Parts: sequence; structure tokens; C-alpha cells
Amino acid sequence: MEKLKKIIEDNSTGWGKIFDYFIQSLIITSLVTFCISTLPDLSNKAKEELDTIETIVVIIFSIEYIIRLAVSNKPLKYIFSFYGLIDLIAIVPFYLSSGIDLRAIRVFRFLRIFRALKIVRYSKAIVRYRVAISLAKEELVLFFLATILLLFFSSVGIYYFENPVQPEAFKSIFHSMWWSVATLTTVGYGDIYPITVGGKLFTFFILMIGLGIVAVPTGLLASALSKARDLENERDH
Amino acid sequence: MEKLKKIIEDNSTGWGKIFDYFIQSLIITSLVTFCISTLPDLSNKAKEELDTIETIVVIIFSIEYIIRLAVSNKPLKYIFSFYGLIDLIAIVPFYLSSGIDLRAIRVFRFLRIFRALKIVRYSKAIVRYRVAISLAKEELVLFFLATILLLFFSSVGIYYFENPVQPEAFKSIFHSMWWSVATLTTVGYGDIYPITVGGKLFTFFILMIGLGIVAVPTGLLASALSKARDLENERDH
Amino acid sequence: MEKLKKIIEDNSTGWGKIFDYFIQSLIITSLVTFCISTLPDLSNKAKEELDTIETIVVIIFSIEYIIRLAVSNKPLKYIFSFYGLIDLIAIVPFYLSSGIDLRAIRVFRFLRIFRALKIVRYSKAIVRYRVAISLAKEELVLFFLATILLLFFSSVGIYYFENPVQPEAFKSIFHSMWWSVATLTTVGYGDIYPITVGGKLFTFFILMIGLGIVAVPTGLLASALSKARDLENERDH
Amino acid sequence: MEKLKKIIEDNSTGWGKIFDYFIQSLIITSLVTFCISTLPDLSNKAKEELDTIETIVVIIFSIEYIIRLAVSNKPLKYIFSFYGLIDLIAIVPFYLSSGIDLRAIRVFRFLRIFRALKIVRYSKAIVRYRVAISLAKEELVLFFLATILLLFFSSVGIYYFENPVQPEAFKSIFHSMWWSVATLTTVGYGDIYPITVGGKLFTFFILMIGLGIVAVPTGLLASALSKARDLENERDH
Repeated sequence: MEKLKKIIEDNSTGWGKIFDYFIQSLIITSLVTFCISTLPDLSNKAKEELDTIETIVVIIFSIEYIIRLAVSNKPLKYIFSFYGLIDLIAIVPFYLSSGIDLRAIRVFRFLRIFRALKIVRYSKAIVRYRVAISLAKEELVLFFLATILLLFFSSVGIYYFENPVQPEAFKSIFHSMWWSVATLTTVGYGDIYPITVGGKLFTFFILMIGLGIVAVPTGLLASALSKARDLENERDH
Repeated sequence: MEKLKKIIEDNSTGWGKIFDYFIQSLIITSLVTFCISTLPDLSNKAKEELDTIETIVVIIFSIEYIIRLAVSNKPLKYIFSFYGLIDLIAIVPFYLSSGIDLRAIRVFRFLRIFRALKIVRYSKAIVRYRVAISLAKEELVLFFLATILLLFFSSVGIYYFENPVQPEAFKSIFHSMWWSVATLTTVGYGDIYPITVGGKLFTFFILMIGLGIVAVPTGLLASALSKARDLENERDH
Repeated sequence: MEKLKKIIEDNSTGWGKIFDYFIQSLIITSLVTFCISTLPDLSNKAKEELDTIETIVVIIFSIEYIIRLAVSNKPLKYIFSFYGLIDLIAIVPFYLSSGIDLRAIRVFRFLRIFRALKIVRYSKAIVRYRVAISLAKEELVLFFLATILLLFFSSVGIYYFENPVQPEAFKSIFHSMWWSVATLTTVGYGDIYPITVGGKLFTFFILMIGLGIVAVPTGLLASALSKARDLENERDH
Repeated sequence: MEKLKKIIEDNSTGWGKIFDYFIQSLIITSLVTFCISTLPDLSNKAKEELDTIETIVVIIFSIEYIIRLAVSNKPLKYIFSFYGLIDLIAIVPFYLSSGIDLRAIRVFRFLRIFRALKIVRYSKAIVRYRVAISLAKEELVLFFLATILLLFFSSVGIYYFENPVQPEAFKSIFHSMWWSVATLTTVGYGDIYPITVGGKLFTFFILMIGLGIVAVPTGLLASALSKARDLENERDH
């Protein structure tokens, strides 16, 4: 029992590592079969094979969940921990969809993607990212608010410029918001864009201000991450 | 009176917080109804309901304005302060549009969006942003000038390359400027782009230089914000 | 004479500032009339007016040039200095195009845009930018080379994936390079994009690597500018 | 022999520099002829000339390879070194394609582009880049994993929103991934984009989170490069 606990909870030993790589490869298998199962022209045979792989993966995950529960010192704490809930979400949809009406299956199957979050369990570098986010928390919130405000103002502005000449594309302020999102993130699909001189000038000004708002959080996160690493190094020495 | 003053002007106490959240939720309600009112296929009943909500919000904002004026030690100073003007701008258009001819309403309704600026009042992190901008002010002005110059040069350049083969899209240097804005901000809608070999080569060189000019202010702001936080920490300790 | 010298060469005194703002507004006037003159549907009267403004501006610039030459201690040094050459380039095309055949005028008119560079004379913050570039020079050169290499490799790669199915869009590696430029700078006009599964996968990998190469110089310049400011502060104290 | 060794291996002396520039210009010649040879409408004469240039370049590279082997103190070590392998890859495809059936030539010709890697040999600033990558290694791996996860989640999400109304564009999760790549890198070709309200809202949220994940590595690399330069300066003083 102690040995099993060590293999499952400690991924620094030989068997622990093998166990980890095994679980991770199962997660990836499960995600890939999920993607394949959405292909439109699958033969019945292929569908059956995908179902078999799915069943095997879920059974192994269920066994893993039971063992984790068994070797845990405080089972209740494990169940309601972040990782415990992810482990549960990764298997529950399968059992639910087997018991009930077929139509609803698709919705629950969607939950399978949360299995991808299990990979997160194995990354220690995430701690540093959390430190970085807490360092730059206030600015990130401010810039998120500023982005929302900017999206709102630019949607209202472009609506007044473009609605009279493009009533279909800029039907309402909600429709203009889609333009704002695509423009301020510089994605620019090209499905909606200003054609009036006023709208083009407005786009220029909004982009000049907007790039200094929408893209700043990225720089903030990067410098906060550098700082988080420095703090870590100081603590270790 | 003193109690009321505390609730309205100090948002660190219990009632002050509740008052703040109440005003903020009203602002958001007002903005959402404004957006909904631009939807093209609204029934008359829906329009009436939106008008009712609008009237209620403005009445509450008016009462708030009067109370702020009443509890203020220097009422005149409040009226002409940044926040005082925003509070006024948020209510005046409603009264103006009620008194006069219906045609003009739409123009004044547009002013309602300034209500969004009221949210700004409640964000203290903005101070740090102002410090950051004053730290990097010179560079930001320089890069703004450089961006304008670059937009001008690239518009002239692409005009000479593309005008002969695409006289409609690149009609004049002003039309080329729209291409420059969409390209140098990397939005790239795809409504206007070079097709000649010379124009494509020119785009490549302009982008190589341009990305090092247009995108730098973002990085400058991010590092100035980090510095502003450091200055704040030093001052506090 | 000494007084005139002070007004022209020293822009910290009252008259010096007025002189500067006057010259700058003339430069902007000249650039705007240049842009307007490219509009396709101009009346003859408008064209004549634009020509008149142009003539006046060039005459004033010529007078300025002669005065600068006269008050300079070393006239030859001024003529061959960076700003001296710009001052000359800003006026010479006008006189050249007056003397010779009309067809060639358009080409020389193009040189008028260098007048925009005269604005540069008045910006001291540019010194800091030069320091920043010299600080990050090696990295900038390396990343420029890496960008060229990346553009080359991605063009070759996409050519092999897309040429067989889109022989028109991806006609040769040169045509593919246009795709590489638009994609790696994230402009994405949408006039040329991969449609094969291989091409799409290749685009994904190229973008994953490419964003870490094409966008890095911007961050380098931003941090070098911060350092240049720190160096300046240290020197001043 | 010692003299030859110095010219080839030491690029700080006069003849060494000339040798270097000669090899580099040959590499560029070779790459340019390769690009030209993909042009669809080449005359037979042009093709022959390109073949001649190619043959001459390969012969010189072969001689260079043999000399490098001859002057090396440890020939075996050179053969299996990074640069030794690149030098070999740059010439082997030519000899292979000459010996065998014509159909297969195209595949081997493709290998010629690896000649571009020979330029890498001459860049010393690359060392600093390697230091920077090793400094930020953990974060870069984390962000690469996070990007993969994000691409996966956004592909699944957009598939459920858009597949019912755009079954052709969003055929399967694999097809949706192409949208995710183009959107999260902000390329936005415009060949595939959401049209449902849910899909557009989803795109907004994904972009808000995504820009803080996909674009961060660039900032990390830039700050790591600054640090690598600082470390270098400390070491040298």
C-alpha cells in the first residue's frame, strides 16, 4: 500500500515516472480519439473501434481514481481538491451517458476535454505563473476593464459611422462589437470593416489608443514572470 | 448629513461599498439598454420598456448628482472637477432631448455612452497607469510621431507602386493610408493589398521597419508600469 | 546677424520657438497639399491653388536655406550635414521640375515627402532611440538574419505543400514569400493561404517558431529604450 | 597547411574574412538560383544555366568540405559535429540526385535549402540566444503546453458553436483547429470565422485569455536576452 502510494503520488521515482507517462499517454489517446470521432464520414467499424478505446481509457481512469482515493490519507479532501474534481469530471460523463437517453450523450461527451486538464497536474512551473499573475493582478484587472470600456466605445463609434451605409454588417451596437473584437486584437478576418472616411479615421485613432491597451497585459505578464523567477532564486539562495 | 457624505464619498465602509456597487450596476444597466435600443427589429413595447428603464436610471443619477453637490464642501470645485463633469454629462442629454424636437434626440442619446466613464471614478489602479505614462511620456510622443511619419511614407510608397495597376483601391494617398493603417497594425482586413512585385517587396521592408516602431510603445508602457509599481513599493516601505 | 543666428539655430528662446512652429506648420501644409494633389478628380482651379501654395512654401524654404547658409560658421559643413542635405532635398526638386520636360515632374515631386524628415530636426528624444539601437544592435542584426532565414524556409516549405493544389497562388517560391511575409507578421490579408492539411500543419509549426523570432526585436527595443533612459539618468546625477 | 587552416577556421584575419564572404555569397547565390528554378515559365536555356551555376557551387562546397576535413586535427569529430553535418547535407543531395532515376530528383533538390543553415556558422551572437533560451526554458515549455491546450479547447468550443450552421467550414475538430491557429496568432486570413452569436462571444473570451498565453513567450525571450547580455557583461568585467 505504501509502495503504491509512492508510485502514484510521487513522480520523482522510477516507477512513479513510468506511471505518470502512462497516464499522460492515455489522456492524449483519449483526446485524439475524441477529435477523430467528430469527423463526418466515419465508417461504423471505425466508430466501434473508437468506442472500444474510449471504454478502455475510462476503465483505467476509474481504477486510477479508486486507487488515489484508497491511498489518500484524507479521502474527502482529495475528492473536493482541484485535481480530485478534474479526475472525477474526466470519468463521470462516460457513466452518465451510458445510463440515459442517446440524444444527450453528445453534450456529456464534450466534458471529456476536461481530461486535458489532467496534464496540468504534472507541471510544477505553473506555480511560478500563479505568482506572476498575483504580482500583476491589479494591472491585469485594470487593463481588462479598460479593454471592455474600449470595446464598448469603439463599437458605439463605428456604429454611428458605418450603420447608415452598411446597415447589414453594422446592424446594431452588438454587431459592431464583433468588429471591435476582431480589430483591436488585430485578427482582422475581413468579414466586417469600415468603408466610410469617418469610419476609417475612427479606426485609426481607436487602433492607436487600443494597441496601447489591449497588448500591454502580455508585456506585464512577461515582466511579472521574470520577477517571479528572480524571487524564486532569491528564496532558494 | 455627515453620514450621507461618508457613504457617498468614502467607498471603504460597508454602506459606501453597497452604494458604489448600486451605482455601478445602474451604469451597466444603462449601457446595456443603450446597446439593445440600437437593435433594428425592436417592437414598440420593448422600446417603451427601454425608455422606462432609461428614465428611472437618469432620475437616480440626478438625485445622486444633487446629493454629491449638497454634501460637497466646495460645490463649485466639484462641478468643474473631472468626475463632476462626467456626472453632469451622464444626465444632461436626457433633459435636453426631452425638451426639444424629436429629430435631434438621436444625437444627444449618443452622449449617453459617456456614462461608461463613471466607472473610472471607482478605480484606484489608474493612478499607477498615469505615473507609467508620465515616465514614458517622451518616448510615447516620439513613437507616435514616428508612427505618423511611417504611415505617411508607406502610403506615398505604396501609392506609387499600386496606383497604376489598382487605380480604384489605391485612388489617392489618402486611400493608401487606409492600407497603411490596416497593415502596420497587422490587422490586415484583406479589403486592400498590393498585387505588384514592387508593392509586395515594399510591404516587406515597411513591415520589417514598421513592427519595430508601431509595437514598441506597448512594451514601453509595460516596463513603465513595472517601474511605477516599484516606485510605489519603495515609497510605501 | 547674431540675433538672426540665434532665432534660427536656438529653439529655446521665444522668437526661436515661433520660427520653429512656423517652419513645422509649413512642412505639414506642404505634405497635406502633396496628398491632396494625388486625388483623381481634382478641378483645374484646385490644381492651380495647390501649385500656388507649393510655390510659396518652396520660396520660404529656399530663403530659410540661404539664411541658414549665411549665419553658419562653416557653410560647407552645413551643406553636407544630414540636416543640410534634407533641407536641400526639400527644395531642389521644385526647381528641377520647373526647368525640364513635364513627364519627369511626377518623379521629382515624390521627393517632396523628404520634407517630412525636417520635423525630425526638432526632436531631441531621438538621441535616446539611437542609444537604444546601439545597445541592442547585435541582437537586432541576428534577429533580422533569423527572420530572413525563416521567411526563406517557410516559403520553400509551403511551396512544396501548396503548389500542387494551388498552382496559381503558390506559383513559385517567390510567390510563396509573399504568403510568408503576410503570415509571419500576422497581417494575414487573406489573399493567399494554405488549403491542404500538410500546409496547415506546416503553418502552425512555422507560426509557433516564427512568433518567437519576428516579434522579439520589438521587446528588445523596448527594454533597450528603458536602459537608455536609465543610463541618461545616471549620467545626469 | 597551417596557413590554409588559419584562413578557413579563423575568420578574424584578412584572408579569413575574404574566404568567409566568398562562401557566404556562394550560399546566397545557391539559394537564389534554387528559388528561380521553381518559376513555372522558365526557358530551357535558363534551366541549363541554373544547372551550371548549381554544379559549380556544389563543386566549390565539396572542395571546401575536403579542405576542412584535411586541416582538421580530429577529422571524425568534425564530420559528426553540428557544422560538419550541415556542410555534408549541403552537398550530398547533388551527388545522390545525379546517380539515380530522374523522378526522384525533386525530393533531393528540396534538401538544398539546408545550405541556408551554413550561414549560421558565421554568427557568434547565436550563443547569447542559446543562453537566453536556457534561462527561460521552463516558462517556454509551459507556455508551449498551454498554447497546445488552449488550441485544443478553443477548437472544441468553436466546433460546438459553429458546426451546426457552417458544417463545411467547421467539419470536425481538426478543421476547427485551423481556425484556432489563425485566430490565436491573430493572423486572421478570413477563410474561416464564426457567424453565430455564441461563436463570436466564445471567440472574444478565447482571445482575451489567449493573447495572454500565445504572445507571452515573445516577451519572455526578449527579457531573457537582456539578461543574457547582462550576464555576459558581468563575466567580461
